[in-house]
Amino acid sequence: MEKNNNFRSIGATTYLSPVPVVMLGCADPENNVKPNLITVAWAGIVCSKPPMVSVSIRKERYSHGIIRNTGEFTINLTSQELCRATDFCGVKSGRDVDKFAEMKLTAIPAPGLSVAPAVAEAPAFLSCKVKEIIELGSHDLFLAEVVDVNIAQQYFTESGAINEEAMDLVGFVHGKYRAMSDVLGFFGYSIASDEALERRGMKR
Amino acid sequence: MEKNNNFRSIGATTYLSPVPVVMLGCADPENNVKPNLITVAWAGIVCSKPPMVSVSIRKERYSHGIIRNTGEFTINLTSQELCRATDFCGVKSGRDVDKFAEMKLTAIPAPGLSVAPAVAEAPAFLSCKVKEIIELGSHDLFLAEVVDVNIAQQYFTESGAINEEAMDLVGFVHGKYRAMSDVLGFFGYSIASDEALERRGMKR
Repeated sequence: MEKNNNFRSIGATTYLSPVPVVMLGCADPENNVKPNLITVAWAGIVCSKPPMVSVSIRKERYSHGIIRNTGEFTINLTSQELCRATDFCGVKSGRDVDKFAEMKLTAIPAPGLSVAPAVAEAPAFLSCKVKEIIELGSHDLFLAEVVDVNIAQQYFTESGAINEEAMDLVGFVHGKYRAMSDVLGFFGYSIASDEALERRGMKR
Repeated sequence: MEKNNNFRSIGATTYLSPVPVVMLGCADPENNVKPNLITVAWAGIVCSKPPMVSVSIRKERYSHGIIRNTGEFTINLTSQELCRATDFCGVKSGRDVDKFAEMKLTAIPAPGLSVAPAVAEAPAFLSCKVKEIIELGSHDLFLAEVVDVNIAQQYFTESGAINEEAMDLVGFVHGKYRAMSDVLGFFGYSIASDEALERRGMKR
């Protein structure tokens, strides 16, 4: 390998991009904890079978204790319309403010879960059950199984396919919320046949 | 909470979106394993201090053994120009093909690592050292510390800031590669002062 001087180091930092930026829904009615939301960008898919996700939360966050106690949360995907609420739920604490009320969001039951609410205004949400919590440093890693996924009816086409492009999803790039735009390809397109490309509306 | 009939279940599945889609670089010269690339979308940031990432890889993948043996990999961010190579490195195996050669990519040393190569054509890459491997099911979860981040010189502005917009980054939404586009806000914009918004070129 030849050395390359085309790069400049910025040190050791969390520069992976884009990452998801999603509101987690939680609640603990037995302990009089109302539905709450916390936004995380340290989240990802970690396994296909069983379907599992990870979310990382600082111990000092209000939602950390709620999710640890109940073992449940929802992941609510972010549309451009929800971007401001998503930011708000990342910088404010549920100890001080009712985020659902403040952001005019509606808490609805999440199929497969007992107490954690979903956001009715989200384009889609995942119902998640915590399997393991691992202490890493500033953040604890919650490994969770996805027990159900629900998508707003309006995003289904007549044939039953899901039109993700219409969701106007938002991603996170180094501290900035960014719109998702053009489809550049589908998984496997680099080795797909001309026929398959044409069927999916792409050219070689 | 009121029941809501606006949603339709698609069952338990990995629907978190967008997620990163990145080429991991690895090599094991002691065992005559040449520089190789594997694309993963099951990746995320898991901790800020220390900076840590997770990547999930199926046991049967060629790179799984390489990264397990050497404890090292790079994460190479995906520009639109690299999208086809990123797809190719996700569907082909390094057992059958030299992906660097086939995709006309250049392997360069990664600062902070001994053997894992980075991709010279990537807009930025993270040097990562494996701390723990957790078996989850179809995938093993690799938890790794970021030991250095390098960014191509061309993305630094004169003031030393980084222009991520110019990287033309790519995200992954339910099986499709999608372009990252407009900046919708910065972290904290929902509660920022008028002055702060103006400084960052945004309006309330």
